[in-house]
Amino acid sequence: MTYRAPIKDMLFDMQALAGLQTLAEQIPAFADHGLDTAQAVLEESAKLNEDVIAPLNFEGDKSPSYWKDGQVFATPGFKEAFRQYAQGGWQGLQHPEEYGGQGLPKTIGAACGEIVQAANVSFALCPLLTDGAIEALLVAGSEAQKQRFIPKLLSGEWTGTMNLTEPQAGSDLALVRSRAEPQGDGTYKVFGTKIFITWGEHDMADNIVHLVLARVPGAPEGVKGISLFLVPKFLVNEDGSLGARNDAHCVSIEHKLGIKASPTAVLQFGDHGGAIGTLIGEENRGLEYMFIMMNAARFGVGVQGIAVADRAYQKAVAYAKDRVQSRPVDGSASAPVAIIHHPDVRRMLMTQRALVEGCRAMAIDAAAAYDIAHHHADADARKQAQAFYEFMVPLVKGYSTEMSLEVTSLGVQVHGGMGFIEETGAAQYYRDARILPIYEGTTAIQANDLVGRKTVRDGGVFARGIAAQIEETEGALAADGGADALAVRAQLAAARASFVQVVDFIAAHGKAQPNAAFAGSVPYLMLGGNLMAGWQLARSLLAAKALLAVGEDTDFMTAKIATARFYAEHILPRCQSLRDAVVNGADSVMALPVDAF
Amino acid sequence: MTYRAPIKDMLFDMQALAGLQTLAEQIPAFADHGLDTAQAVLEESAKLNEDVIAPLNFEGDKSPSYWKDGQVFATPGFKEAFRQYAQGGWQGLQHPEEYGGQGLPKTIGAACGEIVQAANVSFALCPLLTDGAIEALLVAGSEAQKQRFIPKLLSGEWTGTMNLTEPQAGSDLALVRSRAEPQGDGTYKVFGTKIFITWGEHDMADNIVHLVLARVPGAPEGVKGISLFLVPKFLVNEDGSLGARNDAHCVSIEHKLGIKASPTAVLQFGDHGGAIGTLIGEENRGLEYMFIMMNAARFGVGVQGIAVADRAYQKAVAYAKDRVQSRPVDGSASAPVAIIHHPDVRRMLMTQRALVEGCRAMAIDAAAAYDIAHHHADADARKQAQAFYEFMVPLVKGYSTEMSLEVTSLGVQVHGGMGFIEETGAAQYYRDARILPIYEGTTAIQANDLVGRKTVRDGGVFARGIAAQIEETEGALAADGGADALAVRAQLAAARASFVQVVDFIAAHGKAQPNAAFAGSVPYLMLGGNLMAGWQLARSLLAAKALLAVGEDTDFMTAKIATARFYAEHILPRCQSLRDAVVNGADSVMALPVDAF
Repeated sequence: MTYRAPIKDMLFDMQALAGLQTLAEQIPAFADHGLDTAQAVLEESAKLNEDVIAPLNFEGDKSPSYWKDGQVFATPGFKEAFRQYAQGGWQGLQHPEEYGGQGLPKTIGAACGEIVQAANVSFALCPLLTDGAIEALLVAGSEAQKQRFIPKLLSGEWTGTMNLTEPQAGSDLALVRSRAEPQGDGTYKVFGTKIFITWGEHDMADNIVHLVLARVPGAPEGVKGISLFLVPKFLVNEDGSLGARNDAHCVSIEHKLGIKASPTAVLQFGDHGGAIGTLIGEENRGLEYMFIMMNAARFGVGVQGIAVADRAYQKAVAYAKDRVQSRPVDGSASAPVAIIHHPDVRRMLMTQRALVEGCRAMAIDAAAAYDIAHHHADADARKQAQAFYEFMVPLVKGYSTEMSLEVTSLGVQVHGGMGFIEETGAAQYYRDARILPIYEGTTAIQANDLVGRKTVRDGGVFARGIAAQIEETEGALAADGGADALAVRAQLAAARASFVQVVDFIAAHGKAQPNAAFAGSVPYLMLGGNLMAGWQLARSLLAAKALLAVGEDTDFMTAKIATARFYAEHILPRCQSLRDAVVNGADSVMALPVDAF
Repeated sequence: MTYRAPIKDMLFDMQALAGLQTLAEQIPAFADHGLDTAQAVLEESAKLNEDVIAPLNFEGDKSPSYWKDGQVFATPGFKEAFRQYAQGGWQGLQHPEEYGGQGLPKTIGAACGEIVQAANVSFALCPLLTDGAIEALLVAGSEAQKQRFIPKLLSGEWTGTMNLTEPQAGSDLALVRSRAEPQGDGTYKVFGTKIFITWGEHDMADNIVHLVLARVPGAPEGVKGISLFLVPKFLVNEDGSLGARNDAHCVSIEHKLGIKASPTAVLQFGDHGGAIGTLIGEENRGLEYMFIMMNAARFGVGVQGIAVADRAYQKAVAYAKDRVQSRPVDGSASAPVAIIHHPDVRRMLMTQRALVEGCRAMAIDAAAAYDIAHHHADADARKQAQAFYEFMVPLVKGYSTEMSLEVTSLGVQVHGGMGFIEETGAAQYYRDARILPIYEGTTAIQANDLVGRKTVRDGGVFARGIAAQIEETEGALAADGGADALAVRAQLAAARASFVQVVDFIAAHGKAQPNAAFAGSVPYLMLGGNLMAGWQLARSLLAAKALLAVGEDTDFMTAKIATARFYAEHILPRCQSLRDAVVNGADSVMALPVDAF
C-alpha cells in the first residue's frame, strides 16, 4: 500500500471544525449527507483510490502520456482506471442530481478530492478540469448546452478543459488574441493557439469539451472583450451522438518537470477553416464565467497541495520507520535505531504532518462555508459564508501549494541520498508539487486577489473580523487552562496580532502606495494562510480535548493535540518574521533600480 | 551567454570582508596573491567557464552520462572541456607548487570554485572530488603515494573519488562492512560494495584513484575500526605507467533527480579475486583522514549551493526583464510591462540576490580564515582562525545548500508556467540543487556537528565570541547613523540576540537533555547561517559606504547597500521564528510517540 486515505482526520475536521452535522440539519438538500454518509463515501473513495489509482502514480511518471500524429495516449492503465472512476459516480459527486450528479456538499467533496489527488495528481487533473467545465456550464450555459453536455461530462464519457493561456497571455488574460467569428447560424468559428491545456487531448474519453476564451469582432480591448466558447473535439449532433471531428488539434505536448502523466497540450484552433463553437452566456462576459471555473479550480489546486504533501509525508514516515542508521543521541540504545527516533527526523516528520493537517483543516472548514453560502436558507448566513469562503480561496490555494513545496522537499530530505534516486519515488512528489503554486494563478496572483479584492476594497474590515473570531478561540484556550492549550494560545495570539498589523499596513497603503502594499502581498498571504491553518488546529485541539473527555479515540485525539501544539510552536512563529518583512521591508523591495540587476 | 561570473562581487568580498590584501602582506607564501592576482585569475576562470563549461550544463541534463558494459561515458563535450580545465591548471589552484599546483589562497580558490560549479555542477563535481582525494593524500599519504598520485591528479590525467557509503551505511559510517586483507607485500585486497560514488567511473581521464573506507581483519567495531585505502582503477607501475585493470568495477549508475551528467556509481570491489589497494596513513584512522577530505568537500558543497543559486538568479533576472505581462499596480504605465517591474517579482529577485550575495560573503570570509589558519606566522592567529573556520563549515554547507533550494524554487516561480517546462532550463537548477543538502553530510549531520563539536563542547563560548564581534559591527552601524545602516543595525541586533538565546539553550541542554538540544539543531543551523550571512552583508554595507565616499564604482556600491538592507529586512527576521521554535518547541518535536505516526 503506497497511500492510505486519512479518513479519520477528514471526518474529525468535518465533525469538529466544519459542523457537517449542523449543515445536514439546517440544509434540507443535505439532510442525508451527514457524518455517516461522509464516512461511507470516504471509505468507498479510499478503496478505489488506494487499490486502483494510487498504484498508477509512479507508473505515470515513468511512462508519461505521449503524443503521436496529433493524438495523445495516456499512460497504460489510466483509461481503465478513469472508466472505474466515472462508473463509481465520482465525477458527479458535488454536482446536481438533475443532471446525474450526487449533490453532495463540498465539505465531503473536498475530502474526496484530496484522496484522488493524493492517489495520482496527474490522473486527477482530468476530473478536476472537467469539474470546472461543468461548473461554468451550470452557471452560464444555455439549457440546451447543459442538457447536451453536462450528463456526458458527469458520466465520464466526455471530459472538459479550460483554454485560457496563450503564449503572450499567461497571468495577464487581457492579452488574449484568439478570435471567434459569428457564422450567423448561432455558431462561431474559433481561431487561435492555446498553450498549457491540461488533458487537452487524450484517449480516455470519447469526446473533449474545450471551453475557450476568445474575442468576437469589435470586442473591447482588454479583459472586457473576452467571450467564452464551447468547442468540442467532436461536434455533437442534435440527438447527442458524435458528429464530425472539429478543427481543434493538439500539435504537441510539453516535456515537464512533473505531473508527467497529465498531458499538457498546445491546441491549435481553426488551422483548417475554423473550429466550430457555441457561445457560453453572453458575449464579452467570458472572463466572469471563467472566474467561476477558476475559483472552483483554485480551491481544488489548494487541495492538490494538501494531497501531494500528505502522500510525501506518508512515504517519509514509512521510510523513517524502516531505515536503521546511527545510535540515538540520548543514549537510549547502544545499537543503531530506525531514523524516526532521531530528533531532527522527527522534527521533519512533525513539520510535514502539522502542515498537512493544518491545511486540510483550513480547506474543509472553508468548504463548509461554501456549502452554507450556496444552500443555507438564511440570506445573511449565506452572505457571511460567501465572504469567508472568498477570503479563504487565495489562502487555501496559495498557502497549501507553497507548503507542499516544503513538505515534499522534506520528504526527499528524510530519505537522504535515496531521496535523490528516482526509483525511490520521493522525488516525484517534489517535482509534481512544483506546478501547484503556478497554475490556476501563481501565488502572486492569489496574493493580488487577497490584497486587492479581499483586503483593500473594504479597508481590511472583513480580515479584522476573522481576527476577532480567532481571539474568541484564544479565549477558549485560556479558559481551558491546560499546558497545551496555553502554549497554543500564546503563539496564536502573537500570530493573530501580526496578522492584524499586516492587514492595517496593507489597508493603509493599498491605494496611496500600491507598490508598498503589493511588495508585501505574498508574505501577507503566507502569514494569513499560516494563521488560518494554525487557528483551525487550535480549534482542533479544543475539540479533541472535549472528545477525549467523553472517551472517543484516545490515540487519535492525543495525537491531534500534540500536532496542534507542534504547529503552534514551530510554524506559527513564522508569522512574526513575515510581518516584519511586510511592515518594515516594503521600500527595500523596489530600492534597487531595474538596470542594477 | 547563460552565465556571467560575478567577478566584481567576489573581488569586493575579498577586498572588503576577507582582507585578501592583508593576507598577501602578512603571509609570505601569498605575497604575490593579492587583489590583482585574484582579478586576473577570476577573469581567466570566467572565460573558460562562461564560454566552454557553462554551455554544456543543459546538454548534460538532456544527455546524461551513461553506463554500458561496465564503462561510463560522459556527456558529449565533457571530456574535451575537462582537458581544457586541467590544462589551464585549475585542478591545482589551491594545491602545493611542489606537486605542480599553484598554491593560491583558498580565498581565491573558493571564488573560482563557485564559478565552475555555477557553470556546470555535474561537471565540476569531478574536480571537487579529486580535490578531496588530493587533500587526503597530502595529509596522510606516504611520500611514495604523494609522488606517484598527486601530480597526475593535479594535471587532470587522473581523477579521484571518495568511497564511503554502503547500502546499510549512509550517514552512519560505523556500519561500514567493506574489508581489506593484508597480502604481506604491503598491499591489501579490498572487498565490498560502495554506492553513491560520484564520478566513480567515466571516460574523461586515464585512471581513477578511489579512496576507500574498509576494515582490516580484527579491527574494532564502529568508526574506530575503519581504515582508508587507495585503490586505483588501473594499477600503477613503479615508473608511474599504468598496469593491469584492478578489480574495482562499476556495476551500474543511478537514475537521479538532478546532476544527471555526473555519474553516480555503484562500485564493486573484489568480485574477481580482490581489488589491490595500499593503506593511506595508519590502520583504523581512516575516518579521521576521511574527515579531512569531507571538511574540504563540505565547504565545497556549500559553495555549490551559492553557485547553483546564482545561476538560477541570473536566469530569473533575464526572464523577468524580457517577459511582458500586466500593467504595473502603481499605474505608472498604461500598457503591460516587463514583469521585473511588478513588486512581487522584484521581491523574489531580491530574495534570490540577497541570499546569494550573503552566502557568498560568508563563504569567502570563512575561506580567508582557512588561509590564516594554515599559513599565518602567529600561532594564536592560526588557532583563532581555525576555530572560526571550523565553526563556519557546517553553516556554509548547511545554510548555503538549504538556501539554494529556496533560490532555485523562486527561479522556477519567476518563470511562471514556463518554469515547469524542461526546455526552459529553470527546472534543472531546482532539480540539481536538491542533492546539495544531502550529500557530504545532510543538513542534520552538519547541525549535529554545529551542536555537538562546535557549541556544546565548549559550552557555547566560541559562538558567543562571534556574537560579540557582531555587536561590534552593530556599533559601527550605529556610528554611521545613516538610514540604511540604522535599519540594518536594528535587524542585526535582534537576530544576534536570538542567536545568543539559542546558543544558551543548546549549551544548557546539550548534555542533560540531548533530545531537546538536537530537536533544535537544524533550526539553530539555519539561524546561525542566516545571521552570519546577514552579518557579512552588514559589514559589506559599511565597506560599500566607505568606498562610495572615495568615489569607487557608485552603481555597485549603491546596489550592495540596497541588497544588504533587503537581506536585513526580509531574511534576518526569520531568526526570531527559528529561535522560538528552538527555545519553546523542543518538547513538541518528540511528543508524538513513534507508533502514532
